[in-house]
Amino acid sequence: MYGLLLGVRIVEGASFIAGPYCSLLLSQLGAEIIRFDAIGGSPDYRRWPLGPGGDSFYWEGLNKGKKSVALNLAMAEGRELAIAIVTTGGKDSGIFVTNYPESGFLSHDSLSKLRPDLVTAHVLGHADGTSAVDYTVNCGVGLPYMTGPQGTNRVPINHVLPAWDLLAGSTAAVSVLAAIEYRRRTGLGQLIRIPLSDVAAATLGNLGQIAEVAISGTDRPKYGNNLFGAFGRDFGCADGKRVMIVAITSKQWRAAIAALDLQSAISALEAELGMSLDSDEGARFLHRDRINAMVEQVVARYTLAALSQRLTSSGACFGVYRTVHEALTEDPSFVEANPIFAHVHHPSGCKYPTPGFPASFSGAARRDPSPAPVLGGDTEEVLTTLLRIPSAALASLHDRGVVRLADRPLSPR
Amino acid sequence: MYGLLLGVRIVEGASFIAGPYCSLLLSQLGAEIIRFDAIGGSPDYRRWPLGPGGDSFYWEGLNKGKKSVALNLAMAEGRELAIAIVTTGGKDSGIFVTNYPESGFLSHDSLSKLRPDLVTAHVLGHADGTSAVDYTVNCGVGLPYMTGPQGTNRVPINHVLPAWDLLAGSTAAVSVLAAIEYRRRTGLGQLIRIPLSDVAAATLGNLGQIAEVAISGTDRPKYGNNLFGAFGRDFGCADGKRVMIVAITSKQWRAAIAALDLQSAISALEAELGMSLDSDEGARFLHRDRINAMVEQVVARYTLAALSQRLTSSGACFGVYRTVHEALTEDPSFVEANPIFAHVHHPSGCKYPTPGFPASFSGAARRDPSPAPVLGGDTEEVLTTLLRIPSAALASLHDRGVVRLADRPLSPR
Repeated sequence: MYGLLLGVRIVEGASFIAGPYCSLLLSQLGAEIIRFDAIGGSPDYRRWPLGPGGDSFYWEGLNKGKKSVALNLAMAEGRELAIAIVTTGGKDSGIFVTNYPESGFLSHDSLSKLRPDLVTAHVLGHADGTSAVDYTVNCGVGLPYMTGPQGTNRVPINHVLPAWDLLAGSTAAVSVLAAIEYRRRTGLGQLIRIPLSDVAAATLGNLGQIAEVAISGTDRPKYGNNLFGAFGRDFGCADGKRVMIVAITSKQWRAAIAALDLQSAISALEAELGMSLDSDEGARFLHRDRINAMVEQVVARYTLAALSQRLTSSGACFGVYRTVHEALTEDPSFVEANPIFAHVHHPSGCKYPTPGFPASFSGAARRDPSPAPVLGGDTEEVLTTLLRIPSAALASLHDRGVVRLADRPLSPR
Repeated sequence: MYGLLLGVRIVEGASFIAGPYCSLLLSQLGAEIIRFDAIGGSPDYRRWPLGPGGDSFYWEGLNKGKKSVALNLAMAEGRELAIAIVTTGGKDSGIFVTNYPESGFLSHDSLSKLRPDLVTAHVLGHADGTSAVDYTVNCGVGLPYMTGPQGTNRVPINHVLPAWDLLAGSTAAVSVLAAIEYRRRTGLGQLIRIPLSDVAAATLGNLGQIAEVAISGTDRPKYGNNLFGAFGRDFGCADGKRVMIVAITSKQWRAAIAALDLQSAISALEAELGMSLDSDEGARFLHRDRINAMVEQVVARYTLAALSQRLTSSGACFGVYRTVHEALTEDPSFVEANPIFAHVHHPSGCKYPTPGFPASFSGAARRDPSPAPVLGGDTEEVLTTLLRIPSAALASLHDRGVVRLADRPLSPR
């Protein structure tokens, strides 16, 4: 939480990851985020993982620090309230992050008639409007056929991190800030469309993987846990722990080889091959089987503690394989002693380590991360303060089921 | 390429993905990016994948549209030029994206003495300054132990997409734009530190996965290609093609079941279990073995074409598994007919489909993506125009090996 974007107000009508993650980032930089939720919760309100009482840790994680207004969008009055919340306010408002249908009552076309300088960031599956989610995009861009053990090329392995959702969300956040800057200069609003599948295609292109296949005509096969194009793989220690050792630079390579006492064996290999494994990172990859066999033998002789000490003191680049539980309990720098985390009490009744913005700013004070909102917990404030709806009218809206005030108070379970 | 950030100038001294990806995004939104490169190329200049002539498609992909100034940073005069390029210019300049050592001559501390309003975005491995790359971060946050076939929990499977690098880069881009906005309001520059490992830890937290393990005390096991917490898995068609079918919403679930003609079988299963698989996405996950077996049988009866038609017409959410080559050759919407791509001729001598910014802006014209720079191709322009170094002095710098003009002209191979 930083106050860099203080004064900016964003309205979110979005579920799942990409949209909510976009405004989460902007919220953590100081923007005010007002979400409107369906009464009873939007479609991601029960998304796993769940807490002991059935509340979604996923929803809490992606919506912390935001305000929640619960509206019945099946009623015309509910829809009008949503439209009013999106389009109201001064020059630092009128920013809408959404994954609602493009042609519905929340379309940029109809909203911008009411507020011409509106900036709408619309995250969607495919650019043509057809439905897609992270996992149906990922299967189409080749990565599951590159993941996992060598020799199993036609056995797809799905990723477990929804990387395209997250990248679409952060691309949306960059886009929104650029559009705000542009609006400040020109007064113009606009519709930004961020299709998951284009984020994926562009990313493969940015990493050279479209060129690789377009020019060579050949797909990259599975290389197991080997890092592509240089040295890097997982190795097992004497005590059963595993490490990932990587050398993408000459410096990292020399450090790894020195830590493992492999200088003379590597020199002999270089002489045999007539190649420099130091200056040519690609040669490290081409001859990975020879190198890996040597490294494997050495690593297997050391416990993780002894190996870590050697690798660290020589300046090698490595990491230890851990489960989340191991990371939480064995490494204070991961979460417990990490200044980006704080123990926050959420509406689920659970108190747990909650991250703030992962970057730090020397010129702005970090504030503790906020809890997720109670569903509808900000309905009253937003309707009375922002839309200036009198209390009597609010009570009537509530009684008629157009809006819902807080589902429950925020109290410890 | 959009002109939203026109006038903003960013200097990049960075290798590999996170830093270059940060400024690539800003470049595609209209900012001018000046990179300084080591003479002969920075450490990522030969990073795989390579083209037929040994040029890096990776480097070209991440640095397209930027200017390249080749400097000898081992010489004091070369370092002074780098410092001058970073600190020169008016109010829309003085923005530096880097992964250089934090304590060196390019430290924010020393640079900001020359330019107090400097914004430095420093991408690094760990917050404590120790070295890490995407793959050594990823192994420590639990994901390789959640990836791949069920029952192999202690066999790590690395991801092949450098997701943390990319997310750190886009987080850096969001941060830079927020810092520019803050500087405009306050006049203040600052150092932004973006550690890969904190981006990873925060992301797991944002997805509820820290809470999940902190509260339950238990790690999530491998679930193979099953989507966690709802319905989704890969299935094989009669012609050997594979599809990923997903239902995270009730609507997607009803559409999938209808397309597969499984309504009555699912109703019978619901009656047997006493649960609604429609309203309770978690029940779909808990009973995935029963559901998957039914879906498997039906999918296996159809060719991909027949199945796609059924799924599409019922509005189900699905994707086809493809290699990159299959995606390029079978699906025009992926790259060939995708308006975010253009065929661009790069310094490698190769012409290939090159992505622009993946989002589209209704209020700003999209321009074709630019080629990567020739190494040092902009040395002369930047030194004479930006630093106002006379031609004679430039020639002397070149002759003494302080700078290098273009390594070679941009001509087709």
